[in-house]
Amino acid sequence: MKVFDSHAALYIDYQQLVMAQGYFLSGKAQTTAVFDYFYRENPFGNGFVVFAGLSDLLQILETYKFEESEIEYLQSLGFRQEFLHYLRRFRFNGIIHSMREGELVFPLEPIVRVEGSLIETQIIETLLLNLLNFQSLIATKASRIRFAAGNRKIYDFGLRRAQGLGGIHASRAAVVGGVDATSNVYSAFNYSLEPVGTQSHAWIQSYGDELTAFRKYAEYYPDNCILLVDTYNTLRSGVPNAIKIAKEMETRGQKLKAIRIDSGDLALLSKKSRAMLDAARLNYVQIIASNQLDEIVISSLLQQGAPIDGFGVGTRLLTAHNCPALQGIYRQCVIGNQPTLKFSDNYAKTTLPGRKKVMRYFDTNGFFDTDGIMLETEEGIDIFYHPFFTEQHRNVEEYTAKPIMFKVMEGGHIIGKLPTPSESANYVAHRFVCLPPEYKRFENPQQYKVGISPSLMRLRSFLFEQMQKGSLVRR
Amino acid sequence: MKVFDSHAALYIDYQQLVMAQGYFLSGKAQTTAVFDYFYRENPFGNGFVVFAGLSDLLQILETYKFEESEIEYLQSLGFRQEFLHYLRRFRFNGIIHSMREGELVFPLEPIVRVEGSLIETQIIETLLLNLLNFQSLIATKASRIRFAAGNRKIYDFGLRRAQGLGGIHASRAAVVGGVDATSNVYSAFNYSLEPVGTQSHAWIQSYGDELTAFRKYAEYYPDNCILLVDTYNTLRSGVPNAIKIAKEMETRGQKLKAIRIDSGDLALLSKKSRAMLDAARLNYVQIIASNQLDEIVISSLLQQGAPIDGFGVGTRLLTAHNCPALQGIYRQCVIGNQPTLKFSDNYAKTTLPGRKKVMRYFDTNGFFDTDGIMLETEEGIDIFYHPFFTEQHRNVEEYTAKPIMFKVMEGGHIIGKLPTPSESANYVAHRFVCLPPEYKRFENPQQYKVGISPSLMRLRSFLFEQMQKGSLVRR
Repeated sequence: MKVFDSHAALYIDYQQLVMAQGYFLSGKAQTTAVFDYFYRENPFGNGFVVFAGLSDLLQILETYKFEESEIEYLQSLGFRQEFLHYLRRFRFNGIIHSMREGELVFPLEPIVRVEGSLIETQIIETLLLNLLNFQSLIATKASRIRFAAGNRKIYDFGLRRAQGLGGIHASRAAVVGGVDATSNVYSAFNYSLEPVGTQSHAWIQSYGDELTAFRKYAEYYPDNCILLVDTYNTLRSGVPNAIKIAKEMETRGQKLKAIRIDSGDLALLSKKSRAMLDAARLNYVQIIASNQLDEIVISSLLQQGAPIDGFGVGTRLLTAHNCPALQGIYRQCVIGNQPTLKFSDNYAKTTLPGRKKVMRYFDTNGFFDTDGIMLETEEGIDIFYHPFFTEQHRNVEEYTAKPIMFKVMEGGHIIGKLPTPSESANYVAHRFVCLPPEYKRFENPQQYKVGISPSLMRLRSFLFEQMQKGSLVRR
Repeated sequence: MKVFDSHAALYIDYQQLVMAQGYFLSGKAQTTAVFDYFYRENPFGNGFVVFAGLSDLLQILETYKFEESEIEYLQSLGFRQEFLHYLRRFRFNGIIHSMREGELVFPLEPIVRVEGSLIETQIIETLLLNLLNFQSLIATKASRIRFAAGNRKIYDFGLRRAQGLGGIHASRAAVVGGVDATSNVYSAFNYSLEPVGTQSHAWIQSYGDELTAFRKYAEYYPDNCILLVDTYNTLRSGVPNAIKIAKEMETRGQKLKAIRIDSGDLALLSKKSRAMLDAARLNYVQIIASNQLDEIVISSLLQQGAPIDGFGVGTRLLTAHNCPALQGIYRQCVIGNQPTLKFSDNYAKTTLPGRKKVMRYFDTNGFFDTDGIMLETEEGIDIFYHPFFTEQHRNVEEYTAKPIMFKVMEGGHIIGKLPTPSESANYVAHRFVCLPPEYKRFENPQQYKVGISPSLMRLRSFLFEQMQKGSLVRR
């Protein structure tokens, strides 16, 4: 099931088409190029990013084409006939290596490597960045909420405040990051997620009185009965009415599943509600809380001993409220078989040249220790240098190296089976166990070590010198 | 042109379907209801919101239906045959009153009023909130950037960092709010926006040296030639090379349109670049700046006298970076011809009951003075009360009243012609002139006066008392 039914090829920055035509006109259509996707800074002050969105990207690329109506539109903008003719036949035929969805990734390391003709590598830039940046952002946010909530249930309730159609991928990515189920039926349908939802305050209002509204709900949905108790007054009306309904259900051999509190002091109300439920011998009735929750509020509630069994999380999850963009970038590292770099007055923005791969080094307890970036042909590297402060280095001789980048697309075809969101979520959970605790904490997490190989370091220095000379001379 | 090619009916919170089935089963399918869309707090600390997104909502509602594949999906989730049969025939047949797209709106006032059967008013809630919340948010952000930039050009470059497919509506809403053109070809195609874009650093890298890259670009795009000058070194390489190309173009009777600076100190670099261009008698070459811009940075640049003619704005516009969600809500105000309200321990969350309209009162200079919320049948109101602190009131006898809510849909059909984004942008610009300056400033804008009519105030008090009695008695 695809989300883009049509016009995916137009989901592009105009400059990509302008450049593509320029490359085409200057005879560079078949020049090969390699691009890296990476990011420089973890969002939310987090210690890592949960990589997500690859499946959507690959599925769109596999059927990527410009439709005739789109060609006509581009013609109306002044693109030339010969280029439009080229676009009519355009398919993505490149090779993509990538970390797998759900991998825990770190700043500066190439996460995805795209190889192909200069035009095809360039033309997919916006689509790739849009899909990977956003899904990785939301998966990361969700993983923080999962970490805070422990084994308690987490529900995505964010669609109504999502950034428009951004909700479609956000709900998917939230599940990759550790959310259990979503209110978003569209994404549940598209991505086989578990849909979830009961009633809103309007249900209660529609019946005029709360008890009738609860009774009706229990009548229609006895197997999954969750009652929203805060429409009028949680402790004086909502919980007593829910208890009454629970008792009625018991006489029919049914069980009230949970109450939901959506406003007020969730710590206080959940404790008092728990006590009232327990006093009524309804220990099995769970408490679900919602209302502007995020990982910080959830941590605080649990620290206060709030007896909450599940959390509904909305706006702050689906919009990644405190950092709504991952600034991932896509940089050329090879052009026509020549390694290339973009240098910058800001040394930290100088890119890593050449066709590269990433190995992860595990310590004897199976924990992640270091990620090493090296040239694709390199093997058996023992030492990695800090990417900028190269006086610092790390010896990885005693560690076990495992590749974390794999070929996922060749000739424009997906290799193997794409993971489902829940398979990716499982992978996240497994990898999370291998990440030492100092990288997981919310406050000032330790910076994970990502190094570059000696050969890569030398290549960068060489190119840096060459290009500085070149740019001065050529003027 | 529709953005949702299919499955728009599934863009819904699961609870709406659960409730709809419940209403259906309890014989409430034909009960009528009225809902208001409004918000409580301006985003960004702004003095108003630019309302946007209505056209997309109405277009989707006009063809809203559940497809057979969707019905099958809902069946697999356990929805009942008789309800699914109802859904198969379901169309939105309601009446919608709304302010027009581009209206400047304020907290608490109903912006949209939806009337119809309880099920149809309920089933569209998520779609309505998702579309209106997000587009209004982005149009508001864009209007701030427009205010900061004055008459200078503003380009939306944000698609690559947008929240996934949220970019589709974001680019549209940005134009409503005052942006001139967008890099987003998809939205340009769908909404007839002006596409914009030239070249990225990869273009320069692809040619190995900057001068050749510039020369090639000028060769292919002489009429709209903007050169990105910061790939290597803006002042020592980029600007001198751009000047060289400009001079070559002059020999061919062509003119370099602009240079673009995308990194570094934009104030300093734009001043020095301007001086270099002017010294080369290239006063006509404009300077465009980009890189993490927003209304605050743009204000600061212009305050420093930066000679910038156009701004490329990306992430911070399309994700509304410092406040990525408008918390608009949709509340039942009439059920089966009875006015209703939701009350709350937090008095400010108590809703306004009844079928209401909004009038705007203009002072003798044509400036907005007050918005008055009243019952639909009321006419000639002279006094409005503060919505909560009702000791405060405002006499509007001397002001000119104009309606700002209009019927936009009846029987599920759009009334009249929907405005294009640029028509809505024009409306924003006109209305902005009528808003006194104290509401426009970024720092602590004055709070615009929105009041309730005496009858509305009495109705609320009456219902409040009734419901408090009722909820205590019924327990």
